[in-house]
Amino acid sequence: MREAYTDQLDSIFSDLVDISRRVGVAVQRATDALMTGDVELAEGVITDDSEIDLARERVEEAAFDLLSLQQPVAGDLRTVVAALRMVAELERMGDLSVHVAKVARLRVPDVAVPDEIRPTMARMAAVAADMVARVTDVIARRDVEAAIALGRDDEEMDQLRRTSFAELLSDDWNHGVEAAVDVALLGRYYERIADHAVSIANRVIFVVTGHKPSAS
Amino acid sequence: MREAYTDQLDSIFSDLVDISRRVGVAVQRATDALMTGDVELAEGVITDDSEIDLARERVEEAAFDLLSLQQPVAGDLRTVVAALRMVAELERMGDLSVHVAKVARLRVPDVAVPDEIRPTMARMAAVAADMVARVTDVIARRDVEAAIALGRDDEEMDQLRRTSFAELLSDDWNHGVEAAVDVALLGRYYERIADHAVSIANRVIFVVTGHKPSAS
Repeated sequence: MREAYTDQLDSIFSDLVDISRRVGVAVQRATDALMTGDVELAEGVITDDSEIDLARERVEEAAFDLLSLQQPVAGDLRTVVAALRMVAELERMGDLSVHVAKVARLRVPDVAVPDEIRPTMARMAAVAADMVARVTDVIARRDVEAAIALGRDDEEMDQLRRTSFAELLSDDWNHGVEAAVDVALLGRYYERIADHAVSIANRVIFVVTGHKPSAS
Repeated sequence: MREAYTDQLDSIFSDLVDISRRVGVAVQRATDALMTGDVELAEGVITDDSEIDLARERVEEAAFDLLSLQQPVAGDLRTVVAALRMVAELERMGDLSVHVAKVARLRVPDVAVPDEIRPTMARMAAVAADMVARVTDVIARRDVEAAIALGRDDEEMDQLRRTSFAELLSDDWNHGVEAAVDVALLGRYYERIADHAVSIANRVIFVVTGHKPSAS
């Protein structure tokens, strides 16, 4: 019984790692579509999101089966419930990548991000992609140290958001309202992707140590 | 045993109703702060959010106790897991109200929303507040018909988002970039509050009928 439980739980965590990798691909492709105005790439992110949704359903069913058949308690129970939450957050990160891809698609053949703000936006996208890559690793290795480090690095995203607002509200901004609104919303999407990565890392800390990180 | 289970589950749903009411108050107060530039009201929303967070923790603990001690299966298990998800969404709706309140606070003594766009923004806020009020009732009465109706009415929010973008991207817009960015982000926050209300309504449908709504 105990062994079946461990196998099933490992299988759920493998699926979470797989979904997190797919999210990483979605974030990267959405960003590429955004920066190049590549409509096919944007369409691909939007279409492929249904695979993430399906993978989420499979994890949910597996977690329910585990809860029903093995009836875990205490730490084991919390681990399964944490997995359910993690998969919900991963799916949401996929949705946010779709939002980025849709902004990209809307502006084709133009590019939504004006030149001056591209360095800041590219950095936000890179931080978000990096956090997804790292959280994939955190889930795969249930690595508490790496999870704690991830929470600390979230500050760069906050700083980048402030920088982007300063840029688009400065007197030098001459790209009008539409580009400013795009940049503000894109920044919000990347920030939320980063927030979810930190939240998932905190859930891994909780699963491994039994304690919630104080700064979460 | 069965009776204890039912009592505990009812207690969890009562707590969800209570949290949903608090969210309704937060949405309303954040909107009032936004429309009047009332800094104390905005501060109140931000401060009171910690009560929603604490109430969420209490529901989570109660749900874990129920899962550990009663070990529900099948429909009962899905109900408890649904409650965990609903409370996470309610907390998020509280956070989104805090975001609205923070935009209001940032612009004091000015008002973030220019006159021309106030009708659209006020309507978005009213739709969001109405959906929170209705979802509170849906949870309280586990009312499937009302839950289905809530999903249908989400379309007005989509339409309002399009209207607000048309307004702030029109040639008549002369309030500059900052107000446009505020309006775009505020619209996003209200839209997300409405999305969560629909999602919670769908979870109630699932809890009562055992089936996910096809349009979710």
